[in-house]
Amino acid sequence: MMSKDLVGFGDDLDGSTCRIGIVKTRWNPEVVDSLYEGVRAALNETGVKDENIYDTTVPGSFELPLAARFLALSRQCDVVITIGCLIKGETMHFEYIAEAVTKGLMDIQLQTTIPVIFGLLTVLTEEQAVARSKGGNNHGISWGKTAVEMALLRNAALA
Amino acid sequence: MMSKDLVGFGDDLDGSTCRIGIVKTRWNPEVVDSLYEGVRAALNETGVKDENIYDTTVPGSFELPLAARFLALSRQCDVVITIGCLIKGETMHFEYIAEAVTKGLMDIQLQTTIPVIFGLLTVLTEEQAVARSKGGNNHGISWGKTAVEMALLRNAALA
Amino acid sequence: MMSKDLVGFGDDLDGSTCRIGIVKTRWNPEVVDSLYEGVRAALNETGVKDENIYDTTVPGSFELPLAARFLALSRQCDVVITIGCLIKGETMHFEYIAEAVTKGLMDIQLQTTIPVIFGLLTVLTEEQAVARSKGGNNHGISWGKTAVEMALLRNAALA
Amino acid sequence: MMSKDLVGFGDDLDGSTCRIGIVKTRWNPEVVDSLYEGVRAALNETGVKDENIYDTTVPGSFELPLAARFLALSRQCDVVITIGCLIKGETMHFEYIAEAVTKGLMDIQLQTTIPVIFGLLTVLTEEQAVARSKGGNNHGISWGKTAVEMALLRNAALA
Amino acid sequence: MMSKDLVGFGDDLDGSTCRIGIVKTRWNPEVVDSLYEGVRAALNETGVKDENIYDTTVPGSFELPLAARFLALSRQCDVVITIGCLIKGETMHFEYIAEAVTKGLMDIQLQTTIPVIFGLLTVLTEEQAVARSKGGNNHGISWGKTAVEMALLRNAALA
Repeated sequence: MMSKDLVGFGDDLDGSTCRIGIVKTRWNPEVVDSLYEGVRAALNETGVKDENIYDTTVPGSFELPLAARFLALSRQCDVVITIGCLIKGETMHFEYIAEAVTKGLMDIQLQTTIPVIFGLLTVLTEEQAVARSKGGNNHGISWGKTAVEMALLRNAALA
Repeated sequence: MMSKDLVGFGDDLDGSTCRIGIVKTRWNPEVVDSLYEGVRAALNETGVKDENIYDTTVPGSFELPLAARFLALSRQCDVVITIGCLIKGETMHFEYIAEAVTKGLMDIQLQTTIPVIFGLLTVLTEEQAVARSKGGNNHGISWGKTAVEMALLRNAALA
Repeated sequence: MMSKDLVGFGDDLDGSTCRIGIVKTRWNPEVVDSLYEGVRAALNETGVKDENIYDTTVPGSFELPLAARFLALSRQCDVVITIGCLIKGETMHFEYIAEAVTKGLMDIQLQTTIPVIFGLLTVLTEEQAVARSKGGNNHGISWGKTAVEMALLRNAALA
Repeated sequence: MMSKDLVGFGDDLDGSTCRIGIVKTRWNPEVVDSLYEGVRAALNETGVKDENIYDTTVPGSFELPLAARFLALSRQCDVVITIGCLIKGETMHFEYIAEAVTKGLMDIQLQTTIPVIFGLLTVLTEEQAVARSKGGNNHGISWGKTAVEMALLRNAALA
Repeated sequence: MMSKDLVGFGDDLDGSTCRIGIVKTRWNPEVVDSLYEGVRAALNETGVKDENIYDTTVPGSFELPLAARFLALSRQCDVVITIGCLIKGETMHFEYIAEAVTKGLMDIQLQTTIPVIFGLLTVLTEEQAVARSKGGNNHGISWGKTAVEMALLRNAALA
């Protein structure tokens, strides 16, 4: 099923030593769960060991940055993947949440030096969410590989 | 009355050990008071004790982050719930306040490690505010449960 | 003249012990001076003593946050009220200034723990500025009362 | 030539003791150079000594905040004036640069306590840039006077 | 090929002592690789030595700030050049990423004092990306020269 990368990765990407934190939300569970499966498949493909994956669940997107920060500071993870889905609604909730969460996730990685992978879909319709979370275009695949690459980059940079 | 969650929570969510700070505004009192009741009902449903709830009131939304910070740093709370309602008006006040308050609340939780629940409606009309604060769609219910879940997550993460 | 609050305040709001810093701009002086008078009337109504009010003037809105920070760190004030008026013009100056100033004022109160009252009108027309600064709808009145309330809240929180 | 202030300043504004840093960009040189001349004329008018003016040039607006920070931390300046001109183009470059630079300049003055004067035109057309940089409406004049006033305010506040 | 500067630089710009970090993304490789060539040509033109150039590659734009921070804190670089290309798509991903990355890059340079060159195209169409990355209008050329100038400015400022 998961054959297409949104961006090229090296064939020799080796996650066998990487410890991965994952935070996902419970809103839009069908979309988020499929993205999560994409992430897990990519981690598996690069050799990440199941016992090195730390899962956390939070209710909504505003909770992602703090949960990511807990994982980043736990000394258990080399990288944190965040997974969520915001869909534009009638009010302005989408805009303010999306902006604050994106900046919050950026702030965390800069403060902690643990890479935070931005796996938050910010879409205008449910169709857009589905199109980016299913089958060959499942964005989770790229996020999983990005996580492994950034974990390795971090460990090399701070070695 | 309060039966519908906007997002799924575990049936076994147990708030009996949680200490909860609440800050609410006095603008749009009908909306805010109803949201507050939703929060309190959810806290009650998860077993939060009344003596573990710390209430603060502030005039408007720009005051929410500082009051939330006082509660976060009081060592009395495991989580802070903010409740307010911004309605788009003729000027640009809504946009600048909403952005700064949302980011301010995010900043506080990342700085203090105390989860801050984003209970600020940012709506275009009074009808939208009512629709999200009354009856089965009262957003306060989810906020209360989110607070308990995040308090437990925090205490586990930092244990 | 000043009878209408934009938001309810307690009748017993007592500013007699509060030390208040005020920073106002010199742009749009008619609007700003009227807002300032509203602030002063409200402070007077709540019993703030004249000798406990510290006035600063700055040229424009971009100067408000730094001047507010000087007052906040002076140990002379329990709260700082900012007063200014940005009116949308032909260029994008309004948007970038308004956003940076609003966030700057938020940052200061969170960093210093001194409440900063957001008294910056961000309006699309001069008419909107006048409507919010004169007579019974003079926003300065609420800002003055908000300042007293937040000064008391702060002093109680940090006692 | 330079007779009109965009905002009123005291006739007795005395810059004779002020040390002024100036950072200007090299994009849109005609506009920026004219703004710079306005700044210099205003500094001269208030009695700032030539030997107390520290000039820096950078290529573009994204470089302004860091160069301003170097001046702010040099212990040679009581204030830093930034001068640049962003004109809306076909892409979104204008929007993201303008927002980050404006916030960056705000952050610097709050962090260093050295006032940073916001002399960045954010305009939609070249005509708007010319109209704000030439003759009696040269914004540089107000920026120069604002710099002197804020330098004095800072030195008084921190005395 | 590379004859046109987007902004003027001194003929005597001398990069022979400068150590340059470069981070580029793998999205839109044709555009990014051409920008990278422009950067390298400009570095070469100013006399930067090949052994003083440190290259890093990351998957996407959200990874740029953290990788730039690693380089900035490596003590190996006097400046970091970031190269990437964001193209507006159907969802709001472009807007939130562009804003957070731009601010993140600004934050890094202000925190570390290592200049970060903003080489991120934020364009509405692929045509706009091509027009800014090829031939005489290759923006990478200016970015390379800007890097050398800012490295020298930094080293002088902190000497």
